[in-house]
Amino acid sequence: MIILALNCGSSSVKYSLFDWARKQTLAMGLVERVIAGGSFIVQSVPGREDFRLEKECPDHETAIDLIIRTMTEGPAAVIPDISAIAAVGHRVVHGGERFTCSVRIDAEVLEAIREVQHLAPLHNPPNIAGIEAVSSVLPQVPNIAIFDTAFHQTMPRHAYLYALPYNWYERYRVRRYGFHGTSHLYVSKRAAALLGKASCDCNLITMHIGNGVSHCAIRNGISIDTSMGLTPLEGAVMGTRCGDIDPAIPHFMMKMENLTPDEMDNLLNKKSGVLGITGRFTDRRDIIQAARQGDERCRLCLEIESYRLRKYIGAYLAAAGPLDAVVFTAGVGENSWLIRQMALQQLQHLGIHLDEQRNREAVGGGEKIITGDGSPIKAFVIPTDEELVFIEDVAAILDGRYAHHMEFTYSFARPDFVPR
Amino acid sequence: MIILALNCGSSSVKYSLFDWARKQTLAMGLVERVIAGGSFIVQSVPGREDFRLEKECPDHETAIDLIIRTMTEGPAAVIPDISAIAAVGHRVVHGGERFTCSVRIDAEVLEAIREVQHLAPLHNPPNIAGIEAVSSVLPQVPNIAIFDTAFHQTMPRHAYLYALPYNWYERYRVRRYGFHGTSHLYVSKRAAALLGKASCDCNLITMHIGNGVSHCAIRNGISIDTSMGLTPLEGAVMGTRCGDIDPAIPHFMMKMENLTPDEMDNLLNKKSGVLGITGRFTDRRDIIQAARQGDERCRLCLEIESYRLRKYIGAYLAAAGPLDAVVFTAGVGENSWLIRQMALQQLQHLGIHLDEQRNREAVGGGEKIITGDGSPIKAFVIPTDEELVFIEDVAAILDGRYAHHMEFTYSFARPDFVPR
Repeated sequence: MIILALNCGSSSVKYSLFDWARKQTLAMGLVERVIAGGSFIVQSVPGREDFRLEKECPDHETAIDLIIRTMTEGPAAVIPDISAIAAVGHRVVHGGERFTCSVRIDAEVLEAIREVQHLAPLHNPPNIAGIEAVSSVLPQVPNIAIFDTAFHQTMPRHAYLYALPYNWYERYRVRRYGFHGTSHLYVSKRAAALLGKASCDCNLITMHIGNGVSHCAIRNGISIDTSMGLTPLEGAVMGTRCGDIDPAIPHFMMKMENLTPDEMDNLLNKKSGVLGITGRFTDRRDIIQAARQGDERCRLCLEIESYRLRKYIGAYLAAAGPLDAVVFTAGVGENSWLIRQMALQQLQHLGIHLDEQRNREAVGGGEKIITGDGSPIKAFVIPTDEELVFIEDVAAILDGRYAHHMEFTYSFARPDFVPR
Repeated sequence: MIILALNCGSSSVKYSLFDWARKQTLAMGLVERVIAGGSFIVQSVPGREDFRLEKECPDHETAIDLIIRTMTEGPAAVIPDISAIAAVGHRVVHGGERFTCSVRIDAEVLEAIREVQHLAPLHNPPNIAGIEAVSSVLPQVPNIAIFDTAFHQTMPRHAYLYALPYNWYERYRVRRYGFHGTSHLYVSKRAAALLGKASCDCNLITMHIGNGVSHCAIRNGISIDTSMGLTPLEGAVMGTRCGDIDPAIPHFMMKMENLTPDEMDNLLNKKSGVLGITGRFTDRRDIIQAARQGDERCRLCLEIESYRLRKYIGAYLAAAGPLDAVVFTAGVGENSWLIRQMALQQLQHLGIHLDEQRNREAVGGGEKIITGDGSPIKAFVIPTDEELVFIEDVAAILDGRYAHHMEFTYSFARPDFVPR
């Protein structure tokens, strides 16, 4: 079974082609500048040089047609023809309250995704365009939707409702949704396996720290709270997003600098976070290097980011109850030992005893424990694998083995699983 | 020494007259509808019936003149003449970064208060008007400023800076300030006394829960973090303020309902919080009663409010280090045992063992411990007394005994102090 995974953005389409039987990624690629003009495709295949071709893609359908042609014809082909593709999995950013797990897409599901597109006006419309394009280019192939929000739909009301006029929830479904669901799912299952416990017996805090950052409080294996909210702007300090701020600040700054709401929205999403603090970097490696060389703002940035991580650990420790482990994942979480150290170093009184040497050595891949042997609460570094969740959901739905991720046994939940 | 304490709002002036030698409040009162038209004064004196007089006050100077006349002349008089007033203390909401403690007001100080009025455009201008009015009505009397923000000026940079464009801080001093400083100061000193420890040896979380709500993380006796931010809108669920939300929500709702920034600001400040959730109540007693009678939204409101308290306790436990005590104060904190119980009941794993009976009995005044005898972290209910901080600051500044609240020994910090 060959599965095509698609992630359609407003001006790009990312894809990967996965051979389920061999558990192997056949090709990964990207079409950039869709609609924008000057579009091109880049495809990587293990053992080959990257393939690049310029071709105008005025819409998502042309882009997906280009992807199919690239994979099936000419020098970059990896499969003989489109009939080899058993299913297409679509990353859908916002599933609203309707979608609590991955699902096969039919007309009714597509309509339901459309109904919540006001919640993610930048993301859901291109996701929908991608689904429609595949239906047109590959009409016989089943489409599966995998939602960023689905894993967090187990949150209780007191965690997902804001103290805002209740009719905003009734009319527009304004509430906390959370994102990065497949990542939190993957690392929480892996943490349970590393702990040698059933997932449903584990209380965890999972910290996905990349350019986007979100944390998740997990009680008895399910998400009970998460730091991103209605949108991915809330929560931790991110690459360019501000995370938690006084909600009066946008109004204050709009007055001070005579900005429009759209300009303010752009500043909070694109010019804030560690970029805002440092004034020049989003990559934490640059920030750490500059801090080492004495850059005061970069030092400050690391202090702010790690302090905010520490506060979320405390908050979610209060929310999740007696904790088994804290898990770090994604680019920064997996590699920036300094940020992990700064976040964890003063938490002995809460039962987290960091082993500084283990922590420093836990970089560049592999699942590692970074607390000392006697630590009541463990901390792990676990590289995430969102693609695997994606592919397993698609394959299981096709096979009729999947009703809901909460009842499904993923390969990576097994103790003998070997991460890729 | 007779001290007049003034709290000038945009359309009201609250006051109290305090006899420092006798440690006694002589009169308390309020002029309402200043500027707005239809203004009147109400004054309460212990042992007398309330006095009420209607008199137009087109500005703060007329209102303060009315207060002076009411206290010195006619049926409501409590002092023979204005020469009895040794000093006037002014509550000033926002002291910016300049004011880290209470201070005698001179032209330079007044100018500095004016310079930060952009940070509190609704509050500082009437505070300034009050200072100017007193200078005009009582030209010989020294004026002292007591700031809501001063106690929190010990926060480290990583706690007070947001992940926003750094030049917003440089240009406009956009940062966390925090409020309710005199209340957090008072209850933290009292908690240290109840613990039998020096204030500088105490790590505490103080939770001021009234119509406005703010929490404070105190390490070694000083504020290291607080939940209110640039403005009093951030943090906990409040009577009508939303507290922490996804900062993208204002922009989202402005689009959805075609609202102006000012309308949005008003909704977040005046129509949110527990009023927003319940749709009808700000008083937690009404909410608790309705929840008991089966009102689902009121039940939900209590769950949201107490869950958010629990998360702040966890966050500040991570921030403050090994903790001595959690302190509840202000109207709700002192009286709503149910909200305290819901906030604390699942925190045994963090070392807070609530004694449910003690907690239920800790209502209606008095300093009480509400954790069990073996609880590693204690929890107290401590009625706040902001007026006493106010008066002691004024008296000590007049006497030259006060350089900074961090070096000053308040009467209420002594173990033998008896609360009023």
